[in-house]
Amino acid sequence: MIKSMNDLVERAQALETKTLVVAVANDHHVLEAVHKAKEANIIKPILVGDEASILETLEDLGIEKEGYEIVHIVSDVEACETAVKLVSQNDGYFLMKGYVDTAVILRAALDKDYGLRTKNRISHVTVMEVPNYHKLLMMTDGAMNIDPDAAIKQEIIENAIVIANAIGIDEPKIGILAAVEKINPKMQATLDAETLVAKNQKGEIKGCIIGGPFALDNAINKDAAETKGITDPIAGDVDMLLMPQIESGNMFYKSMMFLAGAKSASVIAGATKPIVLTSRADSTDSKFYSIALSALIADIKQ
Amino acid sequence: MIKSMNDLVERAQALETKTLVVAVANDHHVLEAVHKAKEANIIKPILVGDEASILETLEDLGIEKEGYEIVHIVSDVEACETAVKLVSQNDGYFLMKGYVDTAVILRAALDKDYGLRTKNRISHVTVMEVPNYHKLLMMTDGAMNIDPDAAIKQEIIENAIVIANAIGIDEPKIGILAAVEKINPKMQATLDAETLVAKNQKGEIKGCIIGGPFALDNAINKDAAETKGITDPIAGDVDMLLMPQIESGNMFYKSMMFLAGAKSASVIAGATKPIVLTSRADSTDSKFYSIALSALIADIKQ
Repeated sequence: MIKSMNDLVERAQALETKTLVVAVANDHHVLEAVHKAKEANIIKPILVGDEASILETLEDLGIEKEGYEIVHIVSDVEACETAVKLVSQNDGYFLMKGYVDTAVILRAALDKDYGLRTKNRISHVTVMEVPNYHKLLMMTDGAMNIDPDAAIKQEIIENAIVIANAIGIDEPKIGILAAVEKINPKMQATLDAETLVAKNQKGEIKGCIIGGPFALDNAINKDAAETKGITDPIAGDVDMLLMPQIESGNMFYKSMMFLAGAKSASVIAGATKPIVLTSRADSTDSKFYSIALSALIADIKQ
Repeated sequence: MIKSMNDLVERAQALETKTLVVAVANDHHVLEAVHKAKEANIIKPILVGDEASILETLEDLGIEKEGYEIVHIVSDVEACETAVKLVSQNDGYFLMKGYVDTAVILRAALDKDYGLRTKNRISHVTVMEVPNYHKLLMMTDGAMNIDPDAAIKQEIIENAIVIANAIGIDEPKIGILAAVEKINPKMQATLDAETLVAKNQKGEIKGCIIGGPFALDNAINKDAAETKGITDPIAGDVDMLLMPQIESGNMFYKSMMFLAGAKSASVIAGATKPIVLTSRADSTDSKFYSIALSALIADIKQ
């Protein structure tokens, strides 16, 4: 049972070493975390990009170049294409964004010919260790899909189930969040919850137990759920929170990181291989945990 | 300077005692908090409702009836009307919801003839003491307005400035929240931020300093703002967060209360007198702090 970020790292260390391909790798923040993952024997790195810049970045960080495979490509677009192809064609490989615009790497990652597309659109999933919660808490999507409708929320859920499985949660309990726990036609999030719960009950969304609509407190606190008379057995004990829209997801993630002492690992899901796409504002620890999480996901045959 | 809920209570105690009128007062949870505020010399209570039920509730709680003025009215609707009229006609009075539907008390409170209407619609404001933030943090609106547009957000801000003033913040720094800090036409919250910042700069929204759009971290953490290259002087140091919509507001409030060890006081603003409208799920402390906050607001001539 993975109950903490440390457990997650240990599990990743116990696996066969995965290969992390960094696209446009001359990024100080990224290479710092990559090096930590390499030293922890979680990954073998391949750095794609301008060789001179990459070597300079490694030197700046005081990192020896031994153990780093470098694929020299000057153009950002071509570096992303090559990185994506390497990941796509090799088992146990996964992708990380370096010093390049998100749009550029995602265009390569989603290319119909050589990319990492699945039938679903991609989405952002975070696994959090929150001191005041009794187990790991997953959330999706606080970064990628702006205002998903119920159909897109289904894809977001399906993508996140794969991540849950990778960290040992076979059938995640997923709470569909809204501002209230009653269905209210004026609040789309509650109607989406109704749709998603029904689809789960009819077997159209499998591999999880969906409940909701929940206000946050009902989803994560049994006493709060009881006070409100909520009888759903997953109330107060969810593994995963489905966010109504990007603002609430982003805010919940940041409130946990900046005000609740949480640790987190994030990954882009819904691709055939995990994609690590961290933000400059993330700590080195968060980036390192994200690499470890992605190594676990890369271990699963999708 | 009020820096904590304790400071807020002490400030309320230092004022002339205010009169709290509870509509349909036979509510155990409400009377428990009312009694605490009475014992702390913050309020003198008037309980409106069915006298026998109110006396029974007090007895259940082991509270002596001395010091409680009871106005006997059996009908919930009439009890709300009478309570609202009492508050409307007397300086230093404010209103609290007892064992009655929110819709019923708000109908009375917003009556055009005898109610507590202002030119603005009403909104919900919370003042929070969050252990990991360096001062009190206000937020609005996580409970009342579902999906406010920029014009309604202006009213929500104007309402909340009155509350900020009541707790000694003369010119609150207000961060307009979104999922990102760049204006993005696909994200309405960022466009609303642009509008509100412009109105503030043109002097159309006064008595505050508005900044944004901010993602949460930029609003509350100076380092995060610097990492993102945000130069707005209020970044990382806001007094108040304006929420994009009810889901993010509700979720932020509950994440602070259930996962970040926060204490809070809430009030309905935008009426001529403060209205305490707590939820059953709120703790007695939260209800007590809400009464203390409202006593401070009732001290201001609006």
